[in-house]
Amino acid sequence: MNRIEDLRSFPPLDLAAGDRTRQRLDNLTKPRGSLGRLEDLAVQMAEITGRDSPTLHAKVVVVAAGDHGVVEEGVAAYPREVTRQMVENFVSGGAAINCLARLAGARVVVADFGVDCPPFTSGSVRNLKVARGTRNLAREAAMSREECERAIAAGAELIDEEHVRGLDALAIGEMGIGNTTPASCLVAAFTGISVREAVGKGTGLDEAGVERKRKVVEKALALHRSALPDPLAVLAALGGFEIAGLAGAAMRAAQLRVPVFVDGFISSAAALAAARIAPGLEGFLIAAHRSAEPGHAAALKALGLKPLLELEMRLGEGTGAALAFNLAEASVRVLTDMATFGEAGVSDKEGGAG
Amino acid sequence: MNRIEDLRSFPPLDLAAGDRTRQRLDNLTKPRGSLGRLEDLAVQMAEITGRDSPTLHAKVVVVAAGDHGVVEEGVAAYPREVTRQMVENFVSGGAAINCLARLAGARVVVADFGVDCPPFTSGSVRNLKVARGTRNLAREAAMSREECERAIAAGAELIDEEHVRGLDALAIGEMGIGNTTPASCLVAAFTGISVREAVGKGTGLDEAGVERKRKVVEKALALHRSALPDPLAVLAALGGFEIAGLAGAAMRAAQLRVPVFVDGFISSAAALAAARIAPGLEGFLIAAHRSAEPGHAAALKALGLKPLLELEMRLGEGTGAALAFNLAEASVRVLTDMATFGEAGVSDKEGGAG
Repeated sequence: MNRIEDLRSFPPLDLAAGDRTRQRLDNLTKPRGSLGRLEDLAVQMAEITGRDSPTLHAKVVVVAAGDHGVVEEGVAAYPREVTRQMVENFVSGGAAINCLARLAGARVVVADFGVDCPPFTSGSVRNLKVARGTRNLAREAAMSREECERAIAAGAELIDEEHVRGLDALAIGEMGIGNTTPASCLVAAFTGISVREAVGKGTGLDEAGVERKRKVVEKALALHRSALPDPLAVLAALGGFEIAGLAGAAMRAAQLRVPVFVDGFISSAAALAAARIAPGLEGFLIAAHRSAEPGHAAALKALGLKPLLELEMRLGEGTGAALAFNLAEASVRVLTDMATFGEAGVSDKEGGAG
Repeated sequence: MNRIEDLRSFPPLDLAAGDRTRQRLDNLTKPRGSLGRLEDLAVQMAEITGRDSPTLHAKVVVVAAGDHGVVEEGVAAYPREVTRQMVENFVSGGAAINCLARLAGARVVVADFGVDCPPFTSGSVRNLKVARGTRNLAREAAMSREECERAIAAGAELIDEEHVRGLDALAIGEMGIGNTTPASCLVAAFTGISVREAVGKGTGLDEAGVERKRKVVEKALALHRSALPDPLAVLAALGGFEIAGLAGAAMRAAQLRVPVFVDGFISSAAALAAARIAPGLEGFLIAAHRSAEPGHAAALKALGLKPLLELEMRLGEGTGAALAFNLAEASVRVLTDMATFGEAGVSDKEGGAG
């Protein structure tokens, strides 16, 4: 599929815009660098967007949904139908991401990449369904290569549509009962961390459940070892439709110079897969938070990302990314609204106003 | 002064309101506890306010300003007049705290507790000036006991006034050239950490400056050792007018069941002094962030507080607390806006909707 090849290249980061932004920050009425990572975030957004004063008016949280054949192995704490039910909850506005996106002034875009149900009748769910759930990755490839490519392309097309409506920043979030298992598989496959480090309790497994999940991940990694040299094959074998969809969304957003706020463990696994398929993506990614899921830190480290927030969250949906939007907004407001030493008549460190 | 005695006692935390809030959180459409510290924050605010659904409409950042006699020892990177200049910048709305408070929907209340200048003519600066700067704490007590008590009482009265206007949450921030030195002295005196651990580069000292500052702190701690058994005497000897003012503000807010968001190193030193003068205050405090200043972690630990944010900020003014207001708002929105399993028809972990 040509689309995947098209998605592999990114524009260069605009380092000159980043430098100009740093200079502006250094002239504002505060000790240099004293806003710490807020300043770094402003510089990074300038580099990504190519604008000295990035704007964050149009913020979008994509919540990608999909089901997973591997749940038949007993790796999920909630029944499979919860994926569909939660999509309906997103549409009704009653989920955590709805609350947090409203607070952040972001719009929520719910996309069905592979939920195990007929297409949603609500017009507010994007129907990008590749199939009604993946196959059981402990027994066979979760997706065929072609299915995986279709999900990636669908994610990219979703971003093209959103870009037309206005897209200054993208958050990638997800919902899919069982999807910490494919995420653990992907992070273990791409980083080489052990199964013990990669597997956690997800939405609330007990210790026996975690042990069962570890065995499933071990089995899957052994079964699909031959895929390892080919990142797209790894994603197809061990991923999920919503994960592949988010990978495509992240790649396309980066091409369009839109900062991508990566949410939790599953979104980070999607970003990691995308960055292995399309190296160079990393510079366009912002790690919103580090979740309580143990493999998350390894995924972020492999991407060279440092999370903005560490709040022991483990929900997904884009909730951590929605919180990080506020920090991004703060960094932009500082850049555009603060007075310089000269404007305010405040003496700088070296003495003398301005 | 009777006012100080009046400020020493607090209402009990409302643990029942906290329990009801936890129960509500557990019924919302998310795995239990999956919003991590956002959930803990909602529970803590319920305990403080005594309300199951705390509101955060009226948020206030108090920026307390004062000057410090100890700057004559060469412990500050900026000239002394910057305190006054920055107060004017706060009034004009051009400082970092103005931007971040606007974003948080909070009002900024600027209070002069002891800036070295005549009273500000702008009506928007509260004139609570005790004196034009403290005395040099490396040579004598920074404040007399009576001056310190006046600053504490003034901070408390400021909160009474704000409470009449509406006060759902308080952030304590400050501005005072040289005030990391008294803060380092206070944190070392109250926690017993070494001078090396307590002293950092403040707004930007070079290594020689940091070494000079360490010697000043050592000298001051030796000079005022006899004050140690009496927290109010410690605050008077080693503190500052804006620090004492914030201590009073925090105590009075706690009495009024208003959550107190503690900002950076200096605000945390103020909170620590207040908690030593008035034990029990700790339960009403929320640590907004951990700054880059090395003594900050020790101050928070002594208060039993865990910071919400760690963004390598070192500005003060209440900037970290203003960012944390957004997390508090998020936790409240979750509590009030999310659907329950029953309302949304989502199957809970134990199976069955609702």
